[in-house]
Amino acid sequence: MARGGLYYGDYLQLERLLSAQTAESGKLGQAAHDELLFIIVHQAYELWFKQILFEMDAVQGIFSTDQVDDRDVGTAARLLGRIWEILKLGVHQLDVLETMTPLDFLDFRDHLVPASGFQSAQFRQIEVRLGLRRQDRINFEDKPFDARLQGADRDRVNHTEQVKSLHDQVEAWLERTPFIEMGGFTFRESYRKVVTDMLSRDEDTIRTNPLLQDAEREVELAGLKRAQVKFDALFDESIHAAQREEGGWRLSWRALQAALFITLYRDEPALQVPFTLLSRMMDIDETLTIWRYRHSLMVQRMIGLKIGTGGSSGHQYLRRTAEQHRVFGDLFALSTFLIPRSALPALPDAVRAEMGLTYSRKG
Amino acid sequence: MARGGLYYGDYLQLERLLSAQTAESGKLGQAAHDELLFIIVHQAYELWFKQILFEMDAVQGIFSTDQVDDRDVGTAARLLGRIWEILKLGVHQLDVLETMTPLDFLDFRDHLVPASGFQSAQFRQIEVRLGLRRQDRINFEDKPFDARLQGADRDRVNHTEQVKSLHDQVEAWLERTPFIEMGGFTFRESYRKVVTDMLSRDEDTIRTNPLLQDAEREVELAGLKRAQVKFDALFDESIHAAQREEGGWRLSWRALQAALFITLYRDEPALQVPFTLLSRMMDIDETLTIWRYRHSLMVQRMIGLKIGTGGSSGHQYLRRTAEQHRVFGDLFALSTFLIPRSALPALPDAVRAEMGLTYSRKG
Amino acid sequence: MARGGLYYGDYLQLERLLSAQTAESGKLGQAAHDELLFIIVHQAYELWFKQILFEMDAVQGIFSTDQVDDRDVGTAARLLGRIWEILKLGVHQLDVLETMTPLDFLDFRDHLVPASGFQSAQFRQIEVRLGLRRQDRINFEDKPFDARLQGADRDRVNHTEQVKSLHDQVEAWLERTPFIEMGGFTFRESYRKVVTDMLSRDEDTIRTNPLLQDAEREVELAGLKRAQVKFDALFDESIHAAQREEGGWRLSWRALQAALFITLYRDEPALQVPFTLLSRMMDIDETLTIWRYRHSLMVQRMIGLKIGTGGSSGHQYLRRTAEQHRVFGDLFALSTFLIPRSALPALPDAVRAEMGLTYSRKG
Amino acid sequence: MARGGLYYGDYLQLERLLSAQTAESGKLGQAAHDELLFIIVHQAYELWFKQILFEMDAVQGIFSTDQVDDRDVGTAARLLGRIWEILKLGVHQLDVLETMTPLDFLDFRDHLVPASGFQSAQFRQIEVRLGLRRQDRINFEDKPFDARLQGADRDRVNHTEQVKSLHDQVEAWLERTPFIEMGGFTFRESYRKVVTDMLSRDEDTIRTNPLLQDAEREVELAGLKRAQVKFDALFDESIHAAQREEGGWRLSWRALQAALFITLYRDEPALQVPFTLLSRMMDIDETLTIWRYRHSLMVQRMIGLKIGTGGSSGHQYLRRTAEQHRVFGDLFALSTFLIPRSALPALPDAVRAEMGLTYSRKG
Repeated sequence: MARGGLYYGDYLQLERLLSAQTAESGKLGQAAHDELLFIIVHQAYELWFKQILFEMDAVQGIFSTDQVDDRDVGTAARLLGRIWEILKLGVHQLDVLETMTPLDFLDFRDHLVPASGFQSAQFRQIEVRLGLRRQDRINFEDKPFDARLQGADRDRVNHTEQVKSLHDQVEAWLERTPFIEMGGFTFRESYRKVVTDMLSRDEDTIRTNPLLQDAEREVELAGLKRAQVKFDALFDESIHAAQREEGGWRLSWRALQAALFITLYRDEPALQVPFTLLSRMMDIDETLTIWRYRHSLMVQRMIGLKIGTGGSSGHQYLRRTAEQHRVFGDLFALSTFLIPRSALPALPDAVRAEMGLTYSRKG
Repeated sequence: MARGGLYYGDYLQLERLLSAQTAESGKLGQAAHDELLFIIVHQAYELWFKQILFEMDAVQGIFSTDQVDDRDVGTAARLLGRIWEILKLGVHQLDVLETMTPLDFLDFRDHLVPASGFQSAQFRQIEVRLGLRRQDRINFEDKPFDARLQGADRDRVNHTEQVKSLHDQVEAWLERTPFIEMGGFTFRESYRKVVTDMLSRDEDTIRTNPLLQDAEREVELAGLKRAQVKFDALFDESIHAAQREEGGWRLSWRALQAALFITLYRDEPALQVPFTLLSRMMDIDETLTIWRYRHSLMVQRMIGLKIGTGGSSGHQYLRRTAEQHRVFGDLFALSTFLIPRSALPALPDAVRAEMGLTYSRKG
Repeated sequence: MARGGLYYGDYLQLERLLSAQTAESGKLGQAAHDELLFIIVHQAYELWFKQILFEMDAVQGIFSTDQVDDRDVGTAARLLGRIWEILKLGVHQLDVLETMTPLDFLDFRDHLVPASGFQSAQFRQIEVRLGLRRQDRINFEDKPFDARLQGADRDRVNHTEQVKSLHDQVEAWLERTPFIEMGGFTFRESYRKVVTDMLSRDEDTIRTNPLLQDAEREVELAGLKRAQVKFDALFDESIHAAQREEGGWRLSWRALQAALFITLYRDEPALQVPFTLLSRMMDIDETLTIWRYRHSLMVQRMIGLKIGTGGSSGHQYLRRTAEQHRVFGDLFALSTFLIPRSALPALPDAVRAEMGLTYSRKG
Repeated sequence: MARGGLYYGDYLQLERLLSAQTAESGKLGQAAHDELLFIIVHQAYELWFKQILFEMDAVQGIFSTDQVDDRDVGTAARLLGRIWEILKLGVHQLDVLETMTPLDFLDFRDHLVPASGFQSAQFRQIEVRLGLRRQDRINFEDKPFDARLQGADRDRVNHTEQVKSLHDQVEAWLERTPFIEMGGFTFRESYRKVVTDMLSRDEDTIRTNPLLQDAEREVELAGLKRAQVKFDALFDESIHAAQREEGGWRLSWRALQAALFITLYRDEPALQVPFTLLSRMMDIDETLTIWRYRHSLMVQRMIGLKIGTGGSSGHQYLRRTAEQHRVFGDLFALSTFLIPRSALPALPDAVRAEMGLTYSRKG
């Protein structure tokens, strides 16, 4: 066909797309009215999942090398931003699905057993590629997460598990951040000094605050103690290693320091885009969590105390995954280590200069 | 396959669905990265359009009879509410598409000529079924709206044009509202009395307001005059007919009165659901308008002063359709006729009783 | 001042409103940039809380009588719809607050100790008026929910606790639903018959499904058993009473039946608006839950593992309130009792007639 | 008061805030129920306007110098991003206001005459500070935009008009972009070469496309001609000057080139954040436009063909401001000048090096 002859419907393969909705409830008689909505919402999700996986390809391609170009970090941040927008749309899509009432759902729900959203291979791949590991997952009815997938789907998901995840790629990239040890400067050491000061000041505040009752004081001191223990992880590699062993941290010691450094000095030209990158990963983690949570509320509303189409009391499970299936939790936990800007150690001029733009060096 | 064996991916026909994305830019070499997003956004729209048409089927089925069951009016309002939610999602989807920048679009834009969103047959059908008529439309490049559709698509759209639209069905349903002339009561007459009072009071206020300068007073009096002329349409069938002839009104005289009556006495049990129905039609009209407007802004941002993929300076056209392609404009214009609740004529007890629920009549 | 002279700024008391932002961090020197955002977000919340309480006044006024007018139920549903919209806006407002990063927050966070959102008296009043009881609440640091409120605020909240909540008002209104026992018809009995059939059919399906492995079958049968036990609560007043004693139900036996009846036969004219009313209460419950959950995620992101401004590890607490502080949970649990429309017992003509509109009776 | 004793209600000045709502309709009797909503929505807008103006202070402070620090450009982009979020919330707030129906509004509308949203001094200041000039504005009832403001408000707005706007500050900053003329490289010249090629290729496509009918071909060629004329403005200073004189462009010739350069080479480290900055200005412009448009739709729905509270047929005026009151229109028009990445002239190595980060130069 001539290039000039492209037609909208052909380009979008609408004939194929719009003939791919077959209601189960209609196979034996009158289809339930709301089944089409159910199908189309799920198909829209799967289209968007395909888009997310495609963007993940590009982002992971960027981080698959040991020498990530500064130009490409911006691209990665932008594409993660797109994934974030898609996930926000996914949350919004639940508003449409919620126009279906439990009674409407009941008209076709039994026809779907045991099909279930648990069987979305694309969603599993998204989780795996972001960095959700088998051991991080909550089992559902004592079976591994991929037990319900059929052959080809399971193979695809299992194959994805063999590939380095975005989490691990970014961890490696963080570890290569040059500025945290440069010349004589060691970020960790200069930071330790100001933190030690700050924590003893905080302790002082709590001990001398006349408005606190004894019980309150104990609570606050215990909290401070917990913070101190956490800081120890930052300053002492063996403590970090021990906590990591127990699941307290996932990021390596060096990656954690780099992520903290980027967060604290985000205004330096070399760190602005890396900071955006880390923010987008948190945005994605948070929005996935919100989606899981809202999904669980909807399931509860839809089926009450009954079992799900996959035979499960799904909403409790979904709610627990919202809590547990988080990939970039360490980035959230970073806030634990933050100290006020006024207390931040000043960077050596030489290090700052390295983080600037070439043209402005002369300025 | 046994009914119990339904599998998620088979149910949703994912193999078919997820293999229906072919980038034009990829046919001759490396596909442009953002073309997949472009395809998937449009496919998602088309899926949702299918859903909207399906709900329109149900709603129009309800109004296809001369004796619409009170139970069904609630169903119709609920389904129109769903269409509204879908349209709101459609507006939100533009947020995702806007993560594509003009430069990214340029990488594949030329490959799509002359395909264009103008060629969405489903969208045209939605417009037609709501009640947008050929004569209401703004021509684009001096050609009728369906000129760009290919055979089967055009046939489908043209066929839809032969069928009674929702607008016309609801107009007929409104005309059958029994309460506006019941026993000795004529809503129009009792309303005319209070309106006449109110307008002369308003005129008085304007004439005596010491804060108005002469020029302002003239402006306000002219506005009042316009309102009076509008009211005349309500009270005098021949004036309404003349204005309707000139495009001032689309609804028939009787339907207009009924819609106003429902709006004014919406709390009566018999009118609560009809009022919701009218509101949903306005919501749909407004949200379609917002979608068209945002779409036009996005097109402007995307292609600047260039021509669209369909060869058009599309954003100006889209902006004008936002203004002109409205179906339920008369319902918005109804506000012109409203008067404060305190001035509303009380309904005769007999009429009120007819609008109540049977069980409470005894109460 | 002459009525005609009203000025926008005076009407809105802008001088007062816009001079009510004083940053704590600025009292001793340079104010932290983001503190104004923090203040304004919270002030916007409090303005909206005032609006919600005002709408609650109107809604509770409607239900404060034993003879609620059918006209007013529609008004109540509409005002609850407004509260829902406000709560959705409240969720959206978090997007603005999240433009503040943890590091920005740290610049003034210490100045706010021990002030805390726990001290919002208006929010506590909203909870109480909806129907959250003292015994439903999770204690925070072993103190009752109002321990942190100062005198006048605590008095106001405690006073609200003395007044009948919306939950209890609606429960009483549900109990008065006439249709569930009318003439010889008892909804509960006719429903029991079809449920018994359905459950044994379900059991059969599970037992004979060849695709289920034994372990799966046990899980499903256990789920079915749980459903049966739940149904028993519907059919046997003493079982309901026992479960209610243990916190399984909050609604009375009769109210539960009425809510179920409304849900099942929502298309009947007399039930359309009551069904909307129940839906709005669920929407409010769900959106409050989403707000609490998103709030907890934001707190976690903002302060990591540190203590909150009120001295608490707030995000865990917030997350648990999302789970536990629900008022209309029984309405969600109602789905447990639903059966497919095709299995619904037909209503006697006499009962149906009572639920129709007067004018159509003749039809 | 001891620092430790801060109380939530005192901090937020809730007593003051929550006592600043007085319904006009209540002064002579029973207040109209919906007037509180009307007041609170507008107060919430004014709170957010204060926040926007505060962020504008910070952003304009950054651009008030001839030597903007690279670090601060990131901050400015972030704060403009916050303004964007606030504006999106502002659009959402209309959803709440739309729960008020025209009939409800009528209960107090007359009491407000002639107060009007036209009198929001803060909103006028936002417009002025972004860069909307007196001459850009559509007059309303033949009076200048500030005619309805009272003394102090008008003074404040007029004072703002004397200060350099964000538009003009950013224009000056763009003009200082070093890379568009550096060493022997002149961006304009290298770009002209590839554009000339591209346009003649496009012309060729149109002339030889067998699917175009003659009339269509003329339309497309005319469009191409328009594009060429536009490009001339980029390459020839005197043409730009002439078009600018006639209102075709607002940005200076040099600023336009810099903005285009940033858009085309946005991936270079030195341009990533400037590109985000320009994007945020477009986002703000677009969202303000959407807000104005939705506002106009709501006004139309609320008052039909009547006059506004300020005595105006406001919705037509609002709709035209959506179209005309745009500040960063030139950034949207930039898309006119874009060419596909594959055709982009490669930058000289020396120029690229200057746009890199210092540390990576050695790499």
